[in-house]
Amino acid sequence: MERIAARRRPGRPQREIGGIEQRPWKQLTRPYQPIEILSADQVQTIHEMGLTILEEIGMRVLQPQARQFYRSAGCDVDEGEMRVRFDRAMVMEHVAMVPSSFELRARNPEKNVKVGGRHCILSSVGGPAYVMDNDRGRRPGTYAEMCDYLKLIQSFNVLHQEGGGPFEPLDLHQNTRHLDLYYAEITLLDKNWQPQALGRGRAVDALEMVAISLGTTRENLANEMPVFTGIINTNSPLQLDEPMAEGLIALAEHGQVNVITPFTLAGAMSPVTLAGALSQQHAEALAGIVLTQIVRPGVPVMYGGFTSNVDMKTGAPAFGTPEYTQAAQITGQLCRLIGVPFRSSNVTAANSVDAQAAYESAMSLWGCLMGGANLVLHAAGWLGGGLTASFEKLVIDAEMLQMMSAYFDPPVVDIDTLALEAVREVGPAGHFFGAAHTMQRYERAFYSPLVSNWDNYDTWMERGQVTARERANVIWKRMVAEYEQPPIDPGIDEALRDYMERRKREGGCPLN
Amino acid sequence: MERIAARRRPGRPQREIGGIEQRPWKQLTRPYQPIEILSADQVQTIHEMGLTILEEIGMRVLQPQARQFYRSAGCDVDEGEMRVRFDRAMVMEHVAMVPSSFELRARNPEKNVKVGGRHCILSSVGGPAYVMDNDRGRRPGTYAEMCDYLKLIQSFNVLHQEGGGPFEPLDLHQNTRHLDLYYAEITLLDKNWQPQALGRGRAVDALEMVAISLGTTRENLANEMPVFTGIINTNSPLQLDEPMAEGLIALAEHGQVNVITPFTLAGAMSPVTLAGALSQQHAEALAGIVLTQIVRPGVPVMYGGFTSNVDMKTGAPAFGTPEYTQAAQITGQLCRLIGVPFRSSNVTAANSVDAQAAYESAMSLWGCLMGGANLVLHAAGWLGGGLTASFEKLVIDAEMLQMMSAYFDPPVVDIDTLALEAVREVGPAGHFFGAAHTMQRYERAFYSPLVSNWDNYDTWMERGQVTARERANVIWKRMVAEYEQPPIDPGIDEALRDYMERRKREGGCPLN
Repeated sequence: MERIAARRRPGRPQREIGGIEQRPWKQLTRPYQPIEILSADQVQTIHEMGLTILEEIGMRVLQPQARQFYRSAGCDVDEGEMRVRFDRAMVMEHVAMVPSSFELRARNPEKNVKVGGRHCILSSVGGPAYVMDNDRGRRPGTYAEMCDYLKLIQSFNVLHQEGGGPFEPLDLHQNTRHLDLYYAEITLLDKNWQPQALGRGRAVDALEMVAISLGTTRENLANEMPVFTGIINTNSPLQLDEPMAEGLIALAEHGQVNVITPFTLAGAMSPVTLAGALSQQHAEALAGIVLTQIVRPGVPVMYGGFTSNVDMKTGAPAFGTPEYTQAAQITGQLCRLIGVPFRSSNVTAANSVDAQAAYESAMSLWGCLMGGANLVLHAAGWLGGGLTASFEKLVIDAEMLQMMSAYFDPPVVDIDTLALEAVREVGPAGHFFGAAHTMQRYERAFYSPLVSNWDNYDTWMERGQVTARERANVIWKRMVAEYEQPPIDPGIDEALRDYMERRKREGGCPLN
Repeated sequence: MERIAARRRPGRPQREIGGIEQRPWKQLTRPYQPIEILSADQVQTIHEMGLTILEEIGMRVLQPQARQFYRSAGCDVDEGEMRVRFDRAMVMEHVAMVPSSFELRARNPEKNVKVGGRHCILSSVGGPAYVMDNDRGRRPGTYAEMCDYLKLIQSFNVLHQEGGGPFEPLDLHQNTRHLDLYYAEITLLDKNWQPQALGRGRAVDALEMVAISLGTTRENLANEMPVFTGIINTNSPLQLDEPMAEGLIALAEHGQVNVITPFTLAGAMSPVTLAGALSQQHAEALAGIVLTQIVRPGVPVMYGGFTSNVDMKTGAPAFGTPEYTQAAQITGQLCRLIGVPFRSSNVTAANSVDAQAAYESAMSLWGCLMGGANLVLHAAGWLGGGLTASFEKLVIDAEMLQMMSAYFDPPVVDIDTLALEAVREVGPAGHFFGAAHTMQRYERAFYSPLVSNWDNYDTWMERGQVTARERANVIWKRMVAEYEQPPIDPGIDEALRDYMERRKREGGCPLN
């Protein structure tokens, strides 16, 4: 039995529900050793198995130019089967060209971010089809709602990058909505943002617009600090499709960062065993990494780990499971083995912003962050297996990320913090509320939450039994209302609008 | 943008809501290196500071027999101030007597558990004043409800120990209700259980009854495998009160395990800095550990870490914060330094079984389990800062614990699991649902959840938008209905009842 008698600090007001306190902008740097799931030998075995898959089975590559690139680098290409097989030494020669770290440029230079080593950037959810909030449930999203969501991404200090469009604005035409998205990403945020890498057209539009926003040209981007991380999903198992290959080549040609991310759901698109799924993931990631180095030797590239599993009873994808956590941390080991920066994600299958959403996200985040991820995509806002961007989940995730960020600040151990004199002054059975040591430090001593409510039960009842999900709703609305747009040069803004209008007149990028 | 197209396994029924699938009974063994927050030098510094506090400031010890024990071992005792000061070498001589591991006996020998090294036992919530469920909210609990809660603790395979009474049965008299509790703990469970260590009388009643249940005598317990872990909270800062000292001495005399747990809330009962709070925690823990070794050299004892912080705006205790996680993992480092098994807890300040409850518990659990805890008390059921035992939180925690247990089973890497032939068989752009490798393994391939719902959104909506908290309610009711009482020898049962009745006639243990 634990005897707990909480003592209340007298004479101080209780915290307001919905009070918004944030940690300052700060990139994450992991101070602790990463968790290692497998032995060094086992990691080497999976790496070798990935190379064996590439050598013996190979990849199906649907895009002719990509096959041409592979052939030019000495791969065995079967044009009839569109099959590319890789010599293992050739793979490792290309992997050796990959920079182990780099920096990404933001419109606001103070928000440039480092990728690699112990550095980690946290990125918002990208790609969902739907938007959801407490008030109106799940629905197709509009451009206006998407702009509100982008304002929140800008406002949360703990998010270092926008993740490629939080959801589709379905009130805009599908051939041109990427232009409106890019314009919103550039003007509503001053952080780094992600382009859509689905096909060459969308990639080139992103490159043109980001160049305008930075006062440079698309042709010059390759000679400057990279701006873009573009997500390239292989079509697992072992296939690279046309739009993704086009996007990859376009980004690599321009010196931008491809994030090669096999979607290896164990039991469906990869073997039912984690060792097998990760071997296949590794093969697919290596194939994509190699292509970037053929296109432009030395261009930065990342290895995306997205291995999870399906529910074998239903085929439904599972996220934030123990297997997911292990897969993320093993992928971190594989990335460190080959010296390529690692991308992971914060994911859940939950459809509601409830305890499941939180514990699956927690499993994911510990998997990513203690697995040594350098980029956490979908770090905030992902719900329902990634089909939905939730306003409240964005806030809950921001809290969880802030907590991990604070956890990554280890406590200082020195004469001041050891506080021997304070312990002496207070003595047995006293209390520290009024101690000089406390008074000098109490305002910034501890993590101050965004969403968490620490009221006692009676106070919590009196105040209406507000749950975390409801508090998150209050917070995002207040933050949207308080949002301030970062300034932009009027000439740049006009040039962006001109580009967008011209491309709309031309018809944008028709989807096949 | 991530392109995710989930593929459904055709022709298989979807999982029923509330279906109860558990992992088998299995003690946790941590296969990974613990997370180290501080350097070895910093850990040594905090250890030395703890010894300095004991040497220069000392502990206030309210119970005369305890002071006598300390004096007999060479401590400097000021009877007027009831202050005990400790020579650091004497402290370490006694700490050196502590066994680094031991085994705890359960009524069912198959449920004996190991404590120490990489072994960890998970224990249910102990000590709350209230019970809570979705149907009736928070309320004072009854004996009947407490028995239902104990049935669940018995039923969850992932719980290895009952934690000392989930809540107070307020329909029973306060002087004798511990007897009814012990009887219920013995007869409704066959797992190890915790006694109440508040005063000698309650401890002796527990020892008598557990001896009867095991077919032995109280006098013999000290010569057998230990049965009890009793929680001893110091009255922080730096005070050991009478009931706790009495309980400690009684348990140690009988060869049982004291779990010395300072309640060092930083900013209130300890310095506002984590280094200071942990130094004070360490001093108090060492003082209690030393007392056990004076009473009975070599008796097993554990070091309980419970350092958290208060909200400095309100004085409310905070749990499951980044500071809590760091404190747990640093306490693990201190325990490994001195070779004493480590106890930690799964805690939250949330009043509702919502996302906050889950993410604060997740921070706690990662703190405990990757900090190397050998006993996690309050591992399931704790809500509202420990004032409430929640039926639904018990279920949610059981899910989170099962997930951590599965995470602690690293994947096998061998020819079978690497699955090269399956990858070859399926080939590019195929799928693995029907592969022989999948069919042979799919039933047990992945973690199967207790509470988590992986339905897609439309199915989830059709089925009534059931949240995790609501599913947990269905699950615990079904488990109570399906509970089977473990058999007990009728003679032992009668002897237990006789003892309980006699002690009730005698008046039990009056509280002062």
